[in-house]
Amino acid sequence: MIIVMKANAPEEQIAEVCRRVEGLGFRPHLSRGEVRTIIGCVGDERGKPRLQSLELLPGVESVVPILQPFKLASREVRPEKTIVRVGDLAIGGERLCIMAGPCSVESEEQILASAMAVREAGATVLRGGAFKPRTSPYAFQGLEEEGLKLLARAREVTGLKIVTEVVKPDDVDLVADYADILQVGARNNQNFALLKRCGEAKKPVLFKRGMATTIKEYLQAAEYILAEGNYDVILCERGIRTFETATRFTLDINAVPVLNDLTHLPVIVDPSHGTGHWKYVTAIARAAIAAGADGLIVEIHPKPEEALSDGVQSLKPDVFAELMRQLKPVAAAVGRTI
Amino acid sequence: MIIVMKANAPEEQIAEVCRRVEGLGFRPHLSRGEVRTIIGCVGDERGKPRLQSLELLPGVESVVPILQPFKLASREVRPEKTIVRVGDLAIGGERLCIMAGPCSVESEEQILASAMAVREAGATVLRGGAFKPRTSPYAFQGLEEEGLKLLARAREVTGLKIVTEVVKPDDVDLVADYADILQVGARNNQNFALLKRCGEAKKPVLFKRGMATTIKEYLQAAEYILAEGNYDVILCERGIRTFETATRFTLDINAVPVLNDLTHLPVIVDPSHGTGHWKYVTAIARAAIAAGADGLIVEIHPKPEEALSDGVQSLKPDVFAELMRQLKPVAAAVGRTI
Amino acid sequence: MIIVMKANAPEEQIAEVCRRVEGLGFRPHLSRGEVRTIIGCVGDERGKPRLQSLELLPGVESVVPILQPFKLASREVRPEKTIVRVGDLAIGGERLCIMAGPCSVESEEQILASAMAVREAGATVLRGGAFKPRTSPYAFQGLEEEGLKLLARAREVTGLKIVTEVVKPDDVDLVADYADILQVGARNNQNFALLKRCGEAKKPVLFKRGMATTIKEYLQAAEYILAEGNYDVILCERGIRTFETATRFTLDINAVPVLNDLTHLPVIVDPSHGTGHWKYVTAIARAAIAAGADGLIVEIHPKPEEALSDGVQSLKPDVFAELMRQLKPVAAAVGRTI
Amino acid sequence: MIIVMKANAPEEQIAEVCRRVEGLGFRPHLSRGEVRTIIGCVGDERGKPRLQSLELLPGVESVVPILQPFKLASREVRPEKTIVRVGDLAIGGERLCIMAGPCSVESEEQILASAMAVREAGATVLRGGAFKPRTSPYAFQGLEEEGLKLLARAREVTGLKIVTEVVKPDDVDLVADYADILQVGARNNQNFALLKRCGEAKKPVLFKRGMATTIKEYLQAAEYILAEGNYDVILCERGIRTFETATRFTLDINAVPVLNDLTHLPVIVDPSHGTGHWKYVTAIARAAIAAGADGLIVEIHPKPEEALSDGVQSLKPDVFAELMRQLKPVAAAVGRTI
Repeated sequence: MIIVMKANAPEEQIAEVCRRVEGLGFRPHLSRGEVRTIIGCVGDERGKPRLQSLELLPGVESVVPILQPFKLASREVRPEKTIVRVGDLAIGGERLCIMAGPCSVESEEQILASAMAVREAGATVLRGGAFKPRTSPYAFQGLEEEGLKLLARAREVTGLKIVTEVVKPDDVDLVADYADILQVGARNNQNFALLKRCGEAKKPVLFKRGMATTIKEYLQAAEYILAEGNYDVILCERGIRTFETATRFTLDINAVPVLNDLTHLPVIVDPSHGTGHWKYVTAIARAAIAAGADGLIVEIHPKPEEALSDGVQSLKPDVFAELMRQLKPVAAAVGRTI
Repeated sequence: MIIVMKANAPEEQIAEVCRRVEGLGFRPHLSRGEVRTIIGCVGDERGKPRLQSLELLPGVESVVPILQPFKLASREVRPEKTIVRVGDLAIGGERLCIMAGPCSVESEEQILASAMAVREAGATVLRGGAFKPRTSPYAFQGLEEEGLKLLARAREVTGLKIVTEVVKPDDVDLVADYADILQVGARNNQNFALLKRCGEAKKPVLFKRGMATTIKEYLQAAEYILAEGNYDVILCERGIRTFETATRFTLDINAVPVLNDLTHLPVIVDPSHGTGHWKYVTAIARAAIAAGADGLIVEIHPKPEEALSDGVQSLKPDVFAELMRQLKPVAAAVGRTI
Repeated sequence: MIIVMKANAPEEQIAEVCRRVEGLGFRPHLSRGEVRTIIGCVGDERGKPRLQSLELLPGVESVVPILQPFKLASREVRPEKTIVRVGDLAIGGERLCIMAGPCSVESEEQILASAMAVREAGATVLRGGAFKPRTSPYAFQGLEEEGLKLLARAREVTGLKIVTEVVKPDDVDLVADYADILQVGARNNQNFALLKRCGEAKKPVLFKRGMATTIKEYLQAAEYILAEGNYDVILCERGIRTFETATRFTLDINAVPVLNDLTHLPVIVDPSHGTGHWKYVTAIARAAIAAGADGLIVEIHPKPEEALSDGVQSLKPDVFAELMRQLKPVAAAVGRTI
Repeated sequence: MIIVMKANAPEEQIAEVCRRVEGLGFRPHLSRGEVRTIIGCVGDERGKPRLQSLELLPGVESVVPILQPFKLASREVRPEKTIVRVGDLAIGGERLCIMAGPCSVESEEQILASAMAVREAGATVLRGGAFKPRTSPYAFQGLEEEGLKLLARAREVTGLKIVTEVVKPDDVDLVADYADILQVGARNNQNFALLKRCGEAKKPVLFKRGMATTIKEYLQAAEYILAEGNYDVILCERGIRTFETATRFTLDINAVPVLNDLTHLPVIVDPSHGTGHWKYVTAIARAAIAAGADGLIVEIHPKPEEALSDGVQSLKPDVFAELMRQLKPVAAAVGRTI
């Protein structure tokens, strides 16, 4: 943290700031310019928002943070990439991890048909929501535990791993009983109670970025999971809120190289929510892999026009199979396999 | 819902769309132009996202919703303004409701000093966080139940009502035991499990807008609380995420007249989070009342420069007292009292 | 500018950065922490983006600007508020300046009827576009010089001052021949060639904020006008682009106190573009004055439903008269007259 | 355009709306539901914002546009892709077009060194700014005509085509004398006077998206150029303004497939401005090609740390050469060459 004093701030103000800095457990270090004095605060500033409040002292112009506000998620603490293992799958390694499936689990027939399509196309993880956070209380809210059972049944039949969303702390154990990977959705990105419980679980967590979360805030939120001892966190860019309405969200493709630079955690991309329309999904899936993503999560549905949710952004099985075919050479072009 | 067919879509495609519309329980109504046919879907479209999926049928150009997606919160259903009663307080009536207090409850001394300042300045509700959703896991997370007890003590001493945040479904009963008003924060705006539990509680809910929530989504989220039978919901505009960084958030002042137009629920404004800096709070507080807000929630602290959280945006007691003095003529100018 | 070196950056990297800093005409000032060295660059950094490029040197972690990037517009350079005089009008003083009129000048009848309504309601400046920057090339583009003549005629008849938009550098002299105040619109906020020409003109400039311009960029753009010797600049907040679609733009009410803090230039607000719908204009007009704005610019039209542009956001004369009545007590509440 | 009447709007209101619709040259077409009447307006609504004003008539709930607001740029009017020819180059065909060069032309030595690096790496167009729109009036504003001459000299030496920015209408002829492609920058996206002049020029136009321009507005702005008879327009996504600050802008990768769907014009991507930092440029360049872009425009500089502008986002020649190597297999993966 650097404290910039106002031009010509008197000595007693500088001295008072230094006293406060020391009172918070930091060492002040003065650098005097011709008109301005700058006070460096030596010590670890993370989790110390009280330093920021020094901005209120007389003579202080601004307080400028220097360090990134996250630790465990950072490349500084762990330079080598994390590989999250889910049974025989490795997420974050050379082989891309493709997750696919319907938005919601609707019926045995639907989830089995989806699972077969996912496996045939060459993907390895089945997605499907049993607990659905829906914008409207009048919309379908998911089959809940019945949905989890159907997912387990689909795993039995196809051998796919299962990823499914958990929406409240009390459900974590239940969902963890069925799922191979717990999913925390965009709307719960800063639901810290849920994150802590996922941190205590012994399952990998697919942790989506919030629609208005900066990358720094996202990594601080991930830190809630890591801080509980669970390092198996897979990040997922899924689109942010912007003024553009031609697509449902704006997929932040920049987040892929930025996250790869800042954190060791694997990063996947959700082109379905990121665009909101099936006809843009394949192009964005290719872009995500070319940008360096470790995988994808894609919505598919055997009959999108009958889907209980997100039909417009769901791929039909044959379109998904074509997407997988198109991904192969792109993956190879960036030194990955699929 | 209106379905716009593509130019020159053949009859069989139109017929198929009509069949599907009927299958979903709506009545189709055709309007044939020279080149385009438009199909009106007669029936209540709310909570029927499956209608949207008809966009995927051959020959369909777009599906355009017509109704607002919320019901119970709408002026159509209840034209007269809701007044939320908290003991002898009435929120949404002629008299403005001013809530103030520190971001976090830190100690008995701090919360009592805050409460005295709040009462002396003429406000009627004390705010203070016992459970704190913090961006960083390394930041102060609140005193939890101990904080609730201190709030209750401050109520005892001052006679103020208490509003405090609840961050997870399981805490609702505990917080409701102490608080007069439950607060749901911006980060939990779409934490639907929490909203449902607040809907079941017998306490008024101060429900903040999310930082990336559109007004329509916000009212749908409020609908989760109303749908459980709890109509005592107070809305709160607290700033949205935009590209502007001179302030912490961008307070959406437009939301005040828009909400007053769309919903019967009372609307208050949080100028502290909405600006992020104490020196802008008074001007924005005046603006909120002039725009037609039913009240304010303001952060104050006896010693902002020592606050454990949000010090930069907290007012000192004398600045808050001055804010209250300035509000009086503004309130009178719009036909309100304080 | 402060240069933060990476942890444990070797001495030769520090020395090289210092050499570069000197080469750019600044004096480096070292502050050595335990792990990090910080280099203050003493000198005026404004207009020196090359300093920023030092971020590319080995061992540099980040380059942090300290000064605000504008000078002439800043309170530091001119602490007292600027009052822009337009004949007998003073903009920025105790009396609020209310500008009103149609989006476009459409006919003599329309502009005269508008002008009469503006004057009767008590406003002092007539707005009206002769050169219209329209989103679509197929939309009405304005009457051009004929429109300017009609504005002059309306001034003759009513005694109102005239403000009208100029959209290209070559038109500045022509528009200045007719107008009392030149308007630069949001879409031309960073049309620097136009700004320079307005800077050379001998007329006050009403300079609107761009829809994606930060406040800092806005003041830098204003600086283009000031730097040519024209200090008669009136700033105007008119709404920014955000994700919210319930209103056409999001009026950034925070910009009023922030600009009042940073700059000496008068600040007015455009509630018509800021909301995009006539029914929200009055509430936002009141809010703007309560927040400390020096005036308003409001769209009115004798027959909004027949307007060639922006009808939806235009007030009818009687609604505008009522707005003016409502503003009076609000103005008085903040120590202003109207 | 569809006009939705309020529930139970009386017959005389419906009749009045129909009269107005006819008065504007459209044919009304009624569709009566149980509670609501919907009026379709048959005719071409583009450039008819007056239809929107019918929203103000009694009994009207909303006016919903149906057609895309652009014509000449649309796939409906011209289904096959436009290929822009610049001498022997074809932009929009199988072969990708890579443009590269410094932000600003600074000196003969600098531009020649840049041009050699561009050609050696296999790109075919040299970029370089002679007229620079700079945020601050104190920043380097470009060498102007001297810069154009240096670009022409670089073309002579290397055989590269030249693209350079034009910032005001009066400069179009001058810039067109030197350049092979005129560039209109993001800040001038809605500088309609400039667009019209570029439409009259006989040179291809590289037309960048504005930082707050929706895709629909962008295509309407392009329409200004097309409407003057110049169909040689190359679109360029270069990042939009969002709340994310980890990158300078948020590159909207979705815009690539969306534009490919809506328009026949070629689309390239600017990963340099889109990210704002050289270390993210290569990943985003790969993503752009994988998403279906027809080319790139990349900032390079022989000595980025000495650049007069945009040094932080400029690639060194060897990094650019490596980017080109990495693009080859990505291009092949999507059926393109480089």
